[in-house]
Amino acid sequence: MAEEKTLDDLFLDTLKDIYYAEKQIVKNLPKMAKAATSPELKAGFEQHAEETQGQIERLEQVFELIGKPARAKTCEAILGILEEGKEIMSDYKGTVALDAGLVASAQAVEHYEIARYGTLKTWAQQLGLTEAVALLDATLTQEIATDKKLSQVATTTANRKAA
Amino acid sequence: MAEEKTLDDLFLDTLKDIYYAEKQIVKNLPKMAKAATSPELKAGFEQHAEETQGQIERLEQVFELIGKPARAKTCEAILGILEEGKEIMSDYKGTVALDAGLVASAQAVEHYEIARYGTLKTWAQQLGLTEAVALLDATLTQEIATDKKLSQVATTTANRKAA
Repeated sequence: MAEEKTLDDLFLDTLKDIYYAEKQIVKNLPKMAKAATSPELKAGFEQHAEETQGQIERLEQVFELIGKPARAKTCEAILGILEEGKEIMSDYKGTVALDAGLVASAQAVEHYEIARYGTLKTWAQQLGLTEAVALLDATLTQEIATDKKLSQVATTTANRKAA
Repeated sequence: MAEEKTLDDLFLDTLKDIYYAEKQIVKNLPKMAKAATSPELKAGFEQHAEETQGQIERLEQVFELIGKPARAKTCEAILGILEEGKEIMSDYKGTVALDAGLVASAQAVEHYEIARYGTLKTWAQQLGLTEAVALLDATLTQEIATDKKLSQVATTTANRKAA
């Protein structure tokens, strides 16, 4: 008899989804850094690439905590979000609006991650996975901070330059 | 000579992107409402479908304010995000975890919108489009409120039922 799916399954499926997403993001960030024209934004993307590497390692620790192999599952959402970022890079290449567009793309990525890590953290709480909660919360805090930094870059430099 | 692209172009492109996204979301919400098992969640999705209709109208007002026809542009991001929601609906159909999965999917949608409306509002401010700022901010406030309501449904009912 097939067992009914529960929150454990949802947690594992979503963990695989964000694991895939992070691996795509870490491949994409150097391209964003290369495309960015302002040194501040370039450095921000480079720093976030390093941070993302740490986030991938945290996810691997969560897989270990629940006794499952770390496996990625294709995440259509992040593929779509990154695809739009690529369009910006090509459509706005060489224009004053490029950095503003890159910031917007990066914030769409951050918000996807904020949604997923927020959900995973709440599910881990419900499942009593205390150590996983701490790991997921550490990443969630980083993503929220990155989103705020991007908003700051937008309002202080990128948007003005583009206008 | 081709004019260089500026923030006006980015603003218009992103307006078309979220206009497309909202039209997809308004088509998707009745399916989410139908799938939801808890009456509270069902009612929440139905109410948000109505709200989304109002958000589409606000976008049409913004198009009018900038003197452009309201046109949608395929948004790969929302297609990917909604695709993952459809997977949840089919993979978790008839299980105790379905509502928790639906809430998570809806929050991924909300966060995409929060990112886009946040960006559009900041760009409208930079461009001095005062009336557009008010319209975009009204929707942004609704999306943030919807995301909070979904978090509440998750922690008070959906996640417990799923565990």
